[in-house]
Amino acid sequence: MKVNDCPPVWIGPDISEPLNNWLEQAGYTKIWILTDRNSDAFCLDQLINKVPLLAKASLITIEPGEEAKSLASCEKIWDKLTYEGADRKSLLCNLGGGVVSDLGGFAASAFMRGISFIQIPTTLLAMVDATIGGKTGINFSGIKNLIGSFQHASGVFAQTNFLASLHPHEILSGYAEMLKHSLIEGGKHWQSIREMENPTASNLDELLIASIQLKLRITNEDFKESGLREVLNLGHTTAHALESLYFEQKQPLMHGFAVAAGMAIETHLAEHLQTGLQQSEAKQIREYIYQIFPPVKFTPDQINRLIDHMQHDKKNNAGKIRFSLLASIGNARHGFEASTTEIEKALNMYLTDVSHH
Amino acid sequence: MKVNDCPPVWIGPDISEPLNNWLEQAGYTKIWILTDRNSDAFCLDQLINKVPLLAKASLITIEPGEEAKSLASCEKIWDKLTYEGADRKSLLCNLGGGVVSDLGGFAASAFMRGISFIQIPTTLLAMVDATIGGKTGINFSGIKNLIGSFQHASGVFAQTNFLASLHPHEILSGYAEMLKHSLIEGGKHWQSIREMENPTASNLDELLIASIQLKLRITNEDFKESGLREVLNLGHTTAHALESLYFEQKQPLMHGFAVAAGMAIETHLAEHLQTGLQQSEAKQIREYIYQIFPPVKFTPDQINRLIDHMQHDKKNNAGKIRFSLLASIGNARHGFEASTTEIEKALNMYLTDVSHH
Repeated sequence: MKVNDCPPVWIGPDISEPLNNWLEQAGYTKIWILTDRNSDAFCLDQLINKVPLLAKASLITIEPGEEAKSLASCEKIWDKLTYEGADRKSLLCNLGGGVVSDLGGFAASAFMRGISFIQIPTTLLAMVDATIGGKTGINFSGIKNLIGSFQHASGVFAQTNFLASLHPHEILSGYAEMLKHSLIEGGKHWQSIREMENPTASNLDELLIASIQLKLRITNEDFKESGLREVLNLGHTTAHALESLYFEQKQPLMHGFAVAAGMAIETHLAEHLQTGLQQSEAKQIREYIYQIFPPVKFTPDQINRLIDHMQHDKKNNAGKIRFSLLASIGNARHGFEASTTEIEKALNMYLTDVSHH
Repeated sequence: MKVNDCPPVWIGPDISEPLNNWLEQAGYTKIWILTDRNSDAFCLDQLINKVPLLAKASLITIEPGEEAKSLASCEKIWDKLTYEGADRKSLLCNLGGGVVSDLGGFAASAFMRGISFIQIPTTLLAMVDATIGGKTGINFSGIKNLIGSFQHASGVFAQTNFLASLHPHEILSGYAEMLKHSLIEGGKHWQSIREMENPTASNLDELLIASIQLKLRITNEDFKESGLREVLNLGHTTAHALESLYFEQKQPLMHGFAVAAGMAIETHLAEHLQTGLQQSEAKQIREYIYQIFPPVKFTPDQINRLIDHMQHDKKNNAGKIRFSLLASIGNARHGFEASTTEIEKALNMYLTDVSHH
């Protein structure tokens, strides 16, 4: 089904028909597919069997994993596009998870000052988050998404039968962003999430559509993040710091797990800062997070390093650390500033919480 | 004087007052100045003496010359901004010629998905062309401006007393773009240009304003170059090929000299392709170009290499080489395709022309 017009977004178990029609109408001069070795193995064959125009595309394959979201990968893409004769009416199809969509989106947006790209997400996280809203980016100097652009994809094609191939942890990772969207929207959306005891590839279809629609609504209203859109950073100031910490220690950490932990930590922060978030709602959120997601461990010694990483968050303004926090479930607000003491306290409370689980 | 609102463009012998007022109102958290060693020496002191907010800015200095318009320079800028704590409300001031404004514009447009930048051009070329219209870019893989973005500066401040420090060749180089603008506009604008026998730093003020206004009019109408804006590429398909040829031979070639030669060559092409350009007008244009600009030399052996370079021009579509050409003076059109035979013929006719001068 098509759930949005600008940019066009399709969701369904099999999006090959709308994708094929769409490619035929658009008339690109040449097509490249950017993918990583995982998506290559699992999804590429399925796709090109059913979408003849993609069968002729040239392949650009990157290594799986966050390290590939680099300037070096951009250079590889740009070299290949140049060498193989891309022009301004060429298309880049990003087939993969968030790394592929963020990287490919940025590479396309800067090549010849912007060629078209489409997103074909293969992970839940990419379907509900990375490919929706037109943020592209690469990591630089150890900082996530430091370099990037705001550029809508020409189309997003979310084929939900790709989800069946995912490890349950990858479903959970994407589910954290769906949880976040439900906290921003509140009401029935949050109730449906709360009732979900065991999210899997096969029981998320309705929630997925609600999630994508919420994100589309917010990102269309404030495309370049001058305000409202920042509410989508709920949990993310902390999550990015956790990811930077794990990254520099060469330990894996799934984005959604960091976001879930970040949202739990930031409910404590919201309480300290008296955003209006009631203790009962804060506890409800934390209980649900601790029930569904594994804890993200760090030691008390690492708290200062986490705060260092927060200093580099793009949301900051004049050196102060900024958060998007809930004033209540269904009412997220942006632009809260917190002192390092308050942040420390929230991080410590999370450590206490998860030591009990 | 302020000649445009979006983006705001000021022109005058001394723009320190509007610049100072503007910076005070904008309230940036921190300011960086990107400049090269030349602009540093000649213009920076003048500027910071009169604009107190710039005196506190942090400096990023690059080497002068086209080689600095690279991804490596971007990395240097991004590292410095990161290390010195730039945030989303920071400002990058690009003080220099086209290399500085193109490079700084791109670096700013990609840093944190876009921070503000202003352009303070110090060369005639940058005043009439590079800083107007929101094209940013760096060279990549030997191809000019292959990587870049469309992003308006937050403001352009053209201080014409900087022109006095330029070598006469640099005045001529910028003047080629002014000539191009007059050919696009035709009428009085072209007449005023034709009557100019010796363009210098001191006699161009009126023409400069006409030139900037013409470029603003076209780039505001078609910001992302989906059509009309391509007429500004008059002479440029050929000019970029000449520049690539000189660059790979490590010979210097000023952009404007390449553009002037490109326009002369492309009048021959317009005649062959029967765009409507009358022989009398074509000759009038060539005569003026040969009177004002030095010839750009290449050997008949290098013609194939020039055509190779044209194949990589961003204006191409499905492998065909495209040109913007005059149908008459005052009537430029875009999207002409030429065969390699026709291009060869035009290049040879130019070689014959300049052998007589």
